[in-house]
Amino acid sequence: MREQLLAAEKVKAIEWRDGALHLLDQRVLPLEEIWRSYHTASEVAEAIRLMIVRGAPAIGIAAAYAVVLAAGKRLAVGGDWRAALQEDFEVLANSRPTAVNLFWALDRMRDRLGRLKPTDDPLALLEAEALGIHQSDREANLTMAQLGVDLIRKHQGNLQNLLTHCNTGALATGGFGTALGVIRGAYLEGLVERVYADETRPWLQGSRLTAWELANEGIPVSLNVDSAAAHLMKTRGITWVIVGADRIAANGDVANKIGTYQLAVSAMHHGVRFMVVAPSSTIDMTIQSGDDIPIEERDGGELLEFNGKRVAAAVEAVNPVFDVTPADLIDFIVTEKGVVERPDAAKMALLMCRKRLH
Amino acid sequence: MREQLLAAEKVKAIEWRDGALHLLDQRVLPLEEIWRSYHTASEVAEAIRLMIVRGAPAIGIAAAYAVVLAAGKRLAVGGDWRAALQEDFEVLANSRPTAVNLFWALDRMRDRLGRLKPTDDPLALLEAEALGIHQSDREANLTMAQLGVDLIRKHQGNLQNLLTHCNTGALATGGFGTALGVIRGAYLEGLVERVYADETRPWLQGSRLTAWELANEGIPVSLNVDSAAAHLMKTRGITWVIVGADRIAANGDVANKIGTYQLAVSAMHHGVRFMVVAPSSTIDMTIQSGDDIPIEERDGGELLEFNGKRVAAAVEAVNPVFDVTPADLIDFIVTEKGVVERPDAAKMALLMCRKRLH
Repeated sequence: MREQLLAAEKVKAIEWRDGALHLLDQRVLPLEEIWRSYHTASEVAEAIRLMIVRGAPAIGIAAAYAVVLAAGKRLAVGGDWRAALQEDFEVLANSRPTAVNLFWALDRMRDRLGRLKPTDDPLALLEAEALGIHQSDREANLTMAQLGVDLIRKHQGNLQNLLTHCNTGALATGGFGTALGVIRGAYLEGLVERVYADETRPWLQGSRLTAWELANEGIPVSLNVDSAAAHLMKTRGITWVIVGADRIAANGDVANKIGTYQLAVSAMHHGVRFMVVAPSSTIDMTIQSGDDIPIEERDGGELLEFNGKRVAAAVEAVNPVFDVTPADLIDFIVTEKGVVERPDAAKMALLMCRKRLH
Repeated sequence: MREQLLAAEKVKAIEWRDGALHLLDQRVLPLEEIWRSYHTASEVAEAIRLMIVRGAPAIGIAAAYAVVLAAGKRLAVGGDWRAALQEDFEVLANSRPTAVNLFWALDRMRDRLGRLKPTDDPLALLEAEALGIHQSDREANLTMAQLGVDLIRKHQGNLQNLLTHCNTGALATGGFGTALGVIRGAYLEGLVERVYADETRPWLQGSRLTAWELANEGIPVSLNVDSAAAHLMKTRGITWVIVGADRIAANGDVANKIGTYQLAVSAMHHGVRFMVVAPSSTIDMTIQSGDDIPIEERDGGELLEFNGKRVAAAVEAVNPVFDVTPADLIDFIVTEKGVVERPDAAKMALLMCRKRLH
């Protein structure tokens, strides 16, 4: 599986090269493939806010590299560069509120900073830490792909119709993807008949990004409007819904792209299995339940306009971009530390005590 | 209620004037208000296909007027004009497959044609029949508004948050609306805190039409992406989902805009009441269950493009524009003949035996 996924890899969206962060602009895909370069933390924070880079793990990776950029600038200025760097941490932390991978990555960078010895080369070690975060996300995805595929194979022997929401692929992570990594792996193992991709309003991550990633690799994919999912479950023999996560609470409640909760309710109604795939960096053990996860509300203009042109009547739009799926609607949470079946607080605590498998 | 609704009426989308049918082009609302005139049945059939006129009752009314236009042309040519007119019936019947009101209206016109006496003025009588269909749809909506409002008042005393899907208003009917007629009436009676309107992909009837109708009358409305409905039910205290119908089977199964089924599943999960509002012309007693209702699949381009510009990756899109909500997910079907609670075949049969209340 690992070798197959590595051999099939076509899409990368984050590159650290020549002392700069390079991001594939996800706002204009798939019509244009534009790479942008970043040299400061505030530029990266703005790129996160504007969703030039998006996807919980990808945001975390970008933020880690942004700390390296910031440290370089602060070191060049001299003085108490560590104190000054706190401002950059702050700017990055304020870019988007829901995905916890951002805060997890910043915590790891802050921790590395705290462990620097006087004789160390700070920039080299911070850069190594960011590269490590990036690389370990890729490894986590490879591990999760294997675990997720094993679950699909265990439950079904024949070709499966899978449904996914938003984009959880190479574009959303350090590589391969979380939910889309499992789907990629399942396809490579001959388990996939067709992938149904929700278009994922308002930002159309499904139409623009997931469809593009899957089509690039020749994986059979059909787009549908988000509201067709229940109808497709009833009429197209869908057996699994496979999604990512932006934050998982200590009790197994999952915050993910708006619409995930509605999918989970529909999946339960149809007896369709519901799998969440996310690295353990997405699990926030400090949050008891999904009720306490901050849900980002973005500007209503994302619904009212399209490509800068007004489409809707002049009314208020409510635009929560995440929702919370309670643990009791989830069959499996797949992490690189292992699989939790029918999650609850005790099982999540047990998972987080384990050593990483890789 | 009746007087209040008549006094508050602002929007009409169908006018029969100077021997021509005039339609408000629903493709370009709310940015442009363009009326188009039609003089032949095939032009009207094309307008139905292109969704210049849409909404099950409105399609039926437009088709009835189209028969008058066709009869005028055929009479002018002379010969066996009744036989020739069958071709026009055929063209109109083939415009859209799911909404049964179209076939119901054509059947009524065909029946009137069959009852013409040699001394009758055919054109005058066919015109009177079409005007009657139009007027009786308006009356049905006024009656249903009262019945629906009574249900809301009976179940709740305080201000309600309602959720609706697609457009079921004055634009979709001969006037006032079906589900939106009930919502209008409930607002006039002081029962509405806020209306949540699903944007309704892919055609955005919610953003473009429902939001426009409600905003025009000062009714508090918030737009949301379709996939946010379950999240809003959980977090915004929604008590009713109120929708229209394109065809209702003899057992009470309801075909309506894609997404209605998913809403009904979510409503059941949250204990939110689910009301379907449709004139009895929407009920097709020849169809046993929803499984037998033809579901229109429109071109995938409706998802892949926006305003003629490509937005999605080059993949297949499945675009069923209706789905079927089984009767057991429906609390009430409101028609002008009365209300059916927890619909089933026996109750639907009983309803259809009653005389019209108005």
